[in-house]
Amino acid sequence: MSNSLGKSIKIQIFGQSHSDAIGVVIDGLPAGVELDMERINAFLARRRGGGQLSTARAEKDEPKILSGVVNGVTCMAPLCAVFENADTRSADYDSIRRAPRPSHADLTAHIKSGGFNDVRGGGAFSGRLTLPLCFAGAICKQILEARGVRVGAHISSIADIRDVRLDPVSPSLDSIPTDFPVIDRDAAERMRECILSAKADGDSVGGTIECAVTGIPAGIGEPMFDGLENSLARALFAIPAIKGVEFGSGFDCAAMRGSEHNDPIAMCDGRIVTTTNNAGGITGGISNGMPIIVRVAVKPTPSIAKEQLTVDLVSGENTRLTIHGRHDPCIVPRAVAVVEAAVAFTILDEMLSN
Amino acid sequence: MSNSLGKSIKIQIFGQSHSDAIGVVIDGLPAGVELDMERINAFLARRRGGGQLSTARAEKDEPKILSGVVNGVTCMAPLCAVFENADTRSADYDSIRRAPRPSHADLTAHIKSGGFNDVRGGGAFSGRLTLPLCFAGAICKQILEARGVRVGAHISSIADIRDVRLDPVSPSLDSIPTDFPVIDRDAAERMRECILSAKADGDSVGGTIECAVTGIPAGIGEPMFDGLENSLARALFAIPAIKGVEFGSGFDCAAMRGSEHNDPIAMCDGRIVTTTNNAGGITGGISNGMPIIVRVAVKPTPSIAKEQLTVDLVSGENTRLTIHGRHDPCIVPRAVAVVEAAVAFTILDEMLSN
Amino acid sequence: MSNSLGKSIKIQIFGQSHSDAIGVVIDGLPAGVELDMERINAFLARRRGGGQLSTARAEKDEPKILSGVVNGVTCMAPLCAVFENADTRSADYDSIRRAPRPSHADLTAHIKSGGFNDVRGGGAFSGRLTLPLCFAGAICKQILEARGVRVGAHISSIADIRDVRLDPVSPSLDSIPTDFPVIDRDAAERMRECILSAKADGDSVGGTIECAVTGIPAGIGEPMFDGLENSLARALFAIPAIKGVEFGSGFDCAAMRGSEHNDPIAMCDGRIVTTTNNAGGITGGISNGMPIIVRVAVKPTPSIAKEQLTVDLVSGENTRLTIHGRHDPCIVPRAVAVVEAAVAFTILDEMLSN
Amino acid sequence: MSNSLGKSIKIQIFGQSHSDAIGVVIDGLPAGVELDMERINAFLARRRGGGQLSTARAEKDEPKILSGVVNGVTCMAPLCAVFENADTRSADYDSIRRAPRPSHADLTAHIKSGGFNDVRGGGAFSGRLTLPLCFAGAICKQILEARGVRVGAHISSIADIRDVRLDPVSPSLDSIPTDFPVIDRDAAERMRECILSAKADGDSVGGTIECAVTGIPAGIGEPMFDGLENSLARALFAIPAIKGVEFGSGFDCAAMRGSEHNDPIAMCDGRIVTTTNNAGGITGGISNGMPIIVRVAVKPTPSIAKEQLTVDLVSGENTRLTIHGRHDPCIVPRAVAVVEAAVAFTILDEMLSN
Repeated sequence: MSNSLGKSIKIQIFGQSHSDAIGVVIDGLPAGVELDMERINAFLARRRGGGQLSTARAEKDEPKILSGVVNGVTCMAPLCAVFENADTRSADYDSIRRAPRPSHADLTAHIKSGGFNDVRGGGAFSGRLTLPLCFAGAICKQILEARGVRVGAHISSIADIRDVRLDPVSPSLDSIPTDFPVIDRDAAERMRECILSAKADGDSVGGTIECAVTGIPAGIGEPMFDGLENSLARALFAIPAIKGVEFGSGFDCAAMRGSEHNDPIAMCDGRIVTTTNNAGGITGGISNGMPIIVRVAVKPTPSIAKEQLTVDLVSGENTRLTIHGRHDPCIVPRAVAVVEAAVAFTILDEMLSN
Repeated sequence: MSNSLGKSIKIQIFGQSHSDAIGVVIDGLPAGVELDMERINAFLARRRGGGQLSTARAEKDEPKILSGVVNGVTCMAPLCAVFENADTRSADYDSIRRAPRPSHADLTAHIKSGGFNDVRGGGAFSGRLTLPLCFAGAICKQILEARGVRVGAHISSIADIRDVRLDPVSPSLDSIPTDFPVIDRDAAERMRECILSAKADGDSVGGTIECAVTGIPAGIGEPMFDGLENSLARALFAIPAIKGVEFGSGFDCAAMRGSEHNDPIAMCDGRIVTTTNNAGGITGGISNGMPIIVRVAVKPTPSIAKEQLTVDLVSGENTRLTIHGRHDPCIVPRAVAVVEAAVAFTILDEMLSN
Repeated sequence: MSNSLGKSIKIQIFGQSHSDAIGVVIDGLPAGVELDMERINAFLARRRGGGQLSTARAEKDEPKILSGVVNGVTCMAPLCAVFENADTRSADYDSIRRAPRPSHADLTAHIKSGGFNDVRGGGAFSGRLTLPLCFAGAICKQILEARGVRVGAHISSIADIRDVRLDPVSPSLDSIPTDFPVIDRDAAERMRECILSAKADGDSVGGTIECAVTGIPAGIGEPMFDGLENSLARALFAIPAIKGVEFGSGFDCAAMRGSEHNDPIAMCDGRIVTTTNNAGGITGGISNGMPIIVRVAVKPTPSIAKEQLTVDLVSGENTRLTIHGRHDPCIVPRAVAVVEAAVAFTILDEMLSN
Repeated sequence: MSNSLGKSIKIQIFGQSHSDAIGVVIDGLPAGVELDMERINAFLARRRGGGQLSTARAEKDEPKILSGVVNGVTCMAPLCAVFENADTRSADYDSIRRAPRPSHADLTAHIKSGGFNDVRGGGAFSGRLTLPLCFAGAICKQILEARGVRVGAHISSIADIRDVRLDPVSPSLDSIPTDFPVIDRDAAERMRECILSAKADGDSVGGTIECAVTGIPAGIGEPMFDGLENSLARALFAIPAIKGVEFGSGFDCAAMRGSEHNDPIAMCDGRIVTTTNNAGGITGGISNGMPIIVRVAVKPTPSIAKEQLTVDLVSGENTRLTIHGRHDPCIVPRAVAVVEAAVAFTILDEMLSN
């Protein structure tokens, strides 16, 4: 495995869905930061979700900080936070040991580990491992905000229902609701219905998430292999289910002409800006001072209630699999906070490395 | 800067558009590999392009190997190869020092370096730096092929003209022509016309490239931050002009239901396969033995002949810029080899790290 | 901070002397290893020491494994183990906040952290942080032994009292007692007396430790910056109080002639060996198949009961400091296991990286 | 191989003794530094040596800068410098292919590379590879001096002849002559005689080098695995023939009591200092503002003219080897500049990483 990321700040995530605990070690945080636990917990609540739209796993998701903090303030030593795994009904997953779930990591984890992987609840590949990532991201968001940098994301689509796009030149992060992060209220309603309809069918749906970073200074990132796009993509593809990452105009740029795509440069209030932002705030891997715009594609949750075809790893025969128990018909709403966390971590790490 | 990449094999790229030479050091190649210089040069020729469709810069692009090879065979020591820069008409670029070209790295390089960046020909941000990357990629392709792994790419679109997609379950890499890598001959013809039309307008066009890897064993890659998707994306976003990366069904997955997107698992000739390949050969960051499918979006070349708005960095005033001299109306055809190189390097590095 | 180390196996250590817990995340262990907890605990007991010779801190040092292990067997996911800090009498250390202890890290930690460091018990610089390192080393030792590689160390000197040296060609690791690891029983007795005499004076003594690795195959390590000597030295200097590292003949080589120092090469039972081992098993950074011999110098524990000169960080005045409470007159006996742990981790990491 | 080092500045060294060229890529130098080529060449001359005491290989050692510099000033892009190999008489080394030289890297290079290593002149393990390291070090020394940091080293011993030690509290770097860097003129004379005597016998001698860094601010370095001692040791053990590294009182600390070894802390002209410097300027891995003192042991050059025992790798028989041609009876004088280079690189890298 390789659950570590970062240059100036390094995170090391550990745990499996049904291990005693999961957690993260964060090494390299600035000393002297007073953690705002209320905001951290509010951020974790956004990932946890709840209600009809999401999984029924009941966890409190309360971080227990083992090290790195004295009287609520970071002390330069690595910060370790753990989350207990309480709601672990391992009996649900017994069939997986033999019959890998299609489009889950069951099969590749089995091959990679020589059959020694923890299959309970998806083991180390469980979406639950995004919880410690969000904890780290919440701290990074707090530090970024003290430096005038904000990170915000919304659901840009569920199935074929689209939210309005953020204005790439001046994204209004305050227009995004926190409970169900969709700007267009009508689209939000249709997305909810779409998710409930998939749930009723024992099926799932995918979507896209758009994230913006405002206030980032120009000059962050390195050219070529350590550019902001490289680092952000590397972090974002760690989130289970993400299959595409694009910046600025993204894949739409392919159909544009240069005269249409190039962002004119201009002085504005004594600052150099671009009057459009097809670059998504990054040229040559380096921030240009405009907002960073990144979008990700989230595949439909592979856990569905419908019967599926797979292989029995013991007998080597084709077989049919029906997954019982709780399912999450759409992880996109909960993944919004995870995207923000991955982006916030990467941006802060790059700023501190500058 | 940070022009180095890799775990088991490390590449360090150096040079600027108009420095004495550009080159690459490749550290960690297996010893005992006899380099096939004919194939390496043929691969470099694919990147160089030529004819009406591309830039007029005339370079021979002949690698001179300074170290790491004895009698044509790798000897474990780092391999350094250099390419002379001969055709450097720096006078072309004098205006850039003051007036950064829109959507080029001129502005961010200026900010990052405190004004000390090499502005001649785009300096270290020039597309010419993809030449040493292709040299490294050519060697990696040769080593991969000896292990039964093939990497091939084609132009999947120029503007709104699309080539047929590769079959994700069984991509026919031999169906891709090497001169103008488009499978559908009719689409190829229309793409050429589209590029020439942009050129005639002093403009440029973007496109997409699709790349497949066949023969890669299951179990390559690490979960979470060092998955194959993370590593491939990190390498691919180093190629100038790439603004999006997607795997398998990519952004299309967002509109699909799980029952449609999940890839059924089945036995086939004693091997575990999936009967569809929406995953693009990767689940949980780890190869599953199916072909890897990755697509990238290439923005239209920012160098256009049309007048553009920018800022005079000395006077701080808005100004107009017209770029004279040679332009490349579409880098997509030449970028196909670069994509293959980045993918081949990453796949070999991951296989050797396994 | 940067408490992480390793290439194929990565360890991340966390915790402070008086935080809730300390621990380690070990990422990259082979899957399928059944942990021998009895031997791990026996190894940890060697570090803990006890009796008259060492510190009075009473901790059970029982590892609690939070992740990475299923039914006692490693599962590929990162292993996190924590140790509770129970015996934390923070009142002992209040004066340190103002008056840094000479030759402790109090002063540099204060400067580095801007005064936000955890001063309780030495904080993140406490010798207690060698406990999780020993836990990781114990697992590595187990895996190495299954591959025929043994790591063993002894006290080679305390003050001016010397143990016999291990035979560098064929070191007899079984001749080292586990309780007080000195081969020469007479020297052992005099060492004990020397330590007790320093203790009676409220003072401390230093020493040296010699470590040997047998059974390591030839060809491990990389030339130049990633040689075995580089990696072992980097790991060993992480142990508090170590001020020197030497391999093979070490500093004695400076007084030798080449004809005396060169190790003749010979065939022995079909294997290439050297008939002497001044190289300490490493030439050009790479193991040559002979035992690895490394020695370290351990400075006298800086915590002494005598009055010392220091500076009051608040008033900026010179002041006198007397440290009350428990002291460890000599950490050398306890450091033997820590040296073995650092060496075992590095050797296994290098072997897995090969 | 792994010829790369560094965090903020990265060097990648390439080349073999008899390849077309050797060189270095330096990535991460600050932009805007005007290179003082005269001083760089003077530093390289110190490594080259000459006269009766050293090897007869005649090379001009003139760096050719391929990239990273515009009009003599660094431009943020990686700097590549190459040195041609002109004086390569490969015929000298033919016997080595079969009969590895004792205590050289011939045998381990053969094993590591599966017999594909470049055996000409020691290949990639040649002491000649310290030339590009010195080039990088010369630039780092220039940048450090502009920040008030000086690095200087002297021969502290040859065989059993000792120079005076530098005052660890206030080392006088100006007292070190540049031609034969020994402070005590009488000791210098005896060292020369000792070297010539070994040369006359067809033999070689070892020695030690002491290096001091003055002006380094307090707070540089990270605790535990990335401390200054760890990083300096990692860099220094890359120099061929170095078998020991010690800081401050080094191995002598083992025989001291804490009351003698602890460095009292005091205010001096408004600055916190220590009145002795047994710590060698580093506690807890972090600089304390006092001079850094490091010593290394250099083994006698393994190339001697006397007949030696080795093994014929083809026949597998024991055999006798006599090396003809030029020998270097003592590399210690030339290694002084190399030690300064490794230290200067590491210190600058750590300062820029802070």
